[in-house]
Amino acid sequence: MALIVQKYGGTSVASAERIRAVAQKIKAFKETGDQLVVSVSAMSGETNRMTALAQTIQDTPSLREMDVLLTTGEQVTIALLTMALQQLGCDAISYTGAQVRIMTDSEHGKARIKSIDDHRIRQSLTQGKVVVVAGFQGVDEDGHITTLGRGGSDTTAVALAAALKADECQIYTDVDGVFTTDPRIEPNARKMNVVSYEEMLEMASLGSKVLQIRSVEFASKYKVPLRVLSSLIDNPVGTLITNEENIVEQALISGIAHNKDEAKLSLIGVPDEPGIAFKILGLISIANIEVDMIVQSVSAREGLTNFAFTVHRNDFKTASKILDRLCQELGAMIVQSDDKVVKVSLVGIGMRSHAGIATQMFEVLHNEGINIQMISTSEIKISVVIDEKYLELAVRSLHAVFELDKE
Amino acid sequence: MALIVQKYGGTSVASAERIRAVAQKIKAFKETGDQLVVSVSAMSGETNRMTALAQTIQDTPSLREMDVLLTTGEQVTIALLTMALQQLGCDAISYTGAQVRIMTDSEHGKARIKSIDDHRIRQSLTQGKVVVVAGFQGVDEDGHITTLGRGGSDTTAVALAAALKADECQIYTDVDGVFTTDPRIEPNARKMNVVSYEEMLEMASLGSKVLQIRSVEFASKYKVPLRVLSSLIDNPVGTLITNEENIVEQALISGIAHNKDEAKLSLIGVPDEPGIAFKILGLISIANIEVDMIVQSVSAREGLTNFAFTVHRNDFKTASKILDRLCQELGAMIVQSDDKVVKVSLVGIGMRSHAGIATQMFEVLHNEGINIQMISTSEIKISVVIDEKYLELAVRSLHAVFELDKE
Repeated sequence: MALIVQKYGGTSVASAERIRAVAQKIKAFKETGDQLVVSVSAMSGETNRMTALAQTIQDTPSLREMDVLLTTGEQVTIALLTMALQQLGCDAISYTGAQVRIMTDSEHGKARIKSIDDHRIRQSLTQGKVVVVAGFQGVDEDGHITTLGRGGSDTTAVALAAALKADECQIYTDVDGVFTTDPRIEPNARKMNVVSYEEMLEMASLGSKVLQIRSVEFASKYKVPLRVLSSLIDNPVGTLITNEENIVEQALISGIAHNKDEAKLSLIGVPDEPGIAFKILGLISIANIEVDMIVQSVSAREGLTNFAFTVHRNDFKTASKILDRLCQELGAMIVQSDDKVVKVSLVGIGMRSHAGIATQMFEVLHNEGINIQMISTSEIKISVVIDEKYLELAVRSLHAVFELDKE
Repeated sequence: MALIVQKYGGTSVASAERIRAVAQKIKAFKETGDQLVVSVSAMSGETNRMTALAQTIQDTPSLREMDVLLTTGEQVTIALLTMALQQLGCDAISYTGAQVRIMTDSEHGKARIKSIDDHRIRQSLTQGKVVVVAGFQGVDEDGHITTLGRGGSDTTAVALAAALKADECQIYTDVDGVFTTDPRIEPNARKMNVVSYEEMLEMASLGSKVLQIRSVEFASKYKVPLRVLSSLIDNPVGTLITNEENIVEQALISGIAHNKDEAKLSLIGVPDEPGIAFKILGLISIANIEVDMIVQSVSAREGLTNFAFTVHRNDFKTASKILDRLCQELGAMIVQSDDKVVKVSLVGIGMRSHAGIATQMFEVLHNEGINIQMISTSEIKISVVIDEKYLELAVRSLHAVFELDKE
């Protein structure tokens, strides 16, 4: 008898009809003999509706009160899903985040889970009930209601699985699993049966939208077997995300991620003195702008250096203004800026033990006439920044050369 | 500086616009220097909408899960109202029933309040905040969410006022206050400035819909000064409901209540033996039917008695069937039943010290040709059951004879 935690997102529970469908699935699982804990989001659209309602009332809605407002969404879903299960003869009970003591810090709107008390859940499981828990929410030590920010529902499910030492945490979504790359760009993209936490982390931070980084981090930290699968088909298998050690045959490259939200900024011909990086990035950071890739390289002229970095496209204008000012102050030559770039990344644990992947990657791109503007690597990933018009070409040629369409 | 508890019902907070209007009122009060605690219901229509939604999912919705579902209604309102107050520059904070430890028993759907911990509310009041509390809800000792049943929002407000030893509990509604009788029947009905708990209790149990019995009982028990007033006008005065001792000039009669939901049943010619009342009412009670008035009187024949009682019209059919069976069993002569009756009641503390009120009442009705079918009295009320076609005539003639239109 296994203990499984399942998470169903907003679209899966968007209507009474869909809630009934999810209840049928859950009941079928229950009948295989497993113990089930189900984490659910608010019905799709509800969170947006309530946010819009709040904005007609308060220009800058209070973060604390937004949490009070939004958490009603999940509370509605847990009640309806529990009723649907009971209607099918499947004993069930609902709990809010507070009731199972999902304790968080006090950062309303983006709280982090600190602990979960599994006592009450275990008690209900022992009574043979399916336990339905409200995702995306918790409570701080003063009893104030909090929400967990983006990806919070996935994080709740993983955290519950960690606290309960569950055998598996299943995230139900509208894709079949994790693919070698975006199937909309490369139709030959293959669904992976298994991938490591590390690779999934890289892919999530590099642009893959299947899972939020936070929940993968959580799963990795507490070694929760995490499975991403489709809520739209019967008997889905999906992709298992697990410890590297558990993966017998490790692929060289697992996948290709891409990120279209990049913009590149370069300060050319900066006097090469100590503290330059700190000066530039310090001002960027004070403006609350996150920097992704950083490359400092020698300039053509001696004593000068070129400093390039990427930011999110939303921050492009603000960052450009900062650099223009700095250009004058530091006596640099020029600012180059380009918000028509994308980042394409190869991800794979296999890279550690195989030299030459990078070279192969650069060769492929060169052969396709794609200029590489920046390069950034880590143990298991190689990222390049290229002109956005080459996105599909780059992804497809890399996918083919590294034979990602094959098992 | 006074501490006031205010309650606003569902129609007062039915939309974002109305919520803003209520926030304006509250802010104006706050600026007079009082400390304010506000209890609110769900936005009008929400409770019905969610109940209907639940019924599409579960034939007989789980009581516990209905409470989880319905309490989201008040939770939405407290968040929006608090946001509206903050937008007006009025510091405020919201609390659910659980957060201020409104402790109840475990009767989901009709829980009774056992205690409230005022500590957190006082803390926020001391910080100069308006405290907005979710009405109609609480939590039992195991942390399960409960709702309070009919009139629960009023009861929450009164209970809060009792726990906080507030100077006044103001119930905002869509009538100007408590009237001598229903203004729709008697246009000359006068709004009373003050009325006693006892009279209000009688009127509430006798058909007046302004306040639920439970909240008046609570106010009476804990001596909470209770004011009913209109949310639709500026500077309303309403009606103060208070201890008899606080009312200097007591009116002879305070008002006339009526109840159209009555049905009368009589067992005629029952053998007059010990245990008859128990037999009849015992069976009625087992069927979960509440009995209102009871009159046992002598029959024309010796050794026989007539036993009459009234029930709610909804229970008429069921009670009739029980009586038909009993008629045979007990060897009674006949069952008379009539669901076209109404109960009209005079209420007034003044009755205690004035004999002859009843006589005067019966004389008035007699002069109008209205036959009295049953009579029931208490210290401060006289009720009669009459044919429903005489309702308006009875109310108006009594109102005129006892000069209720005058102060």
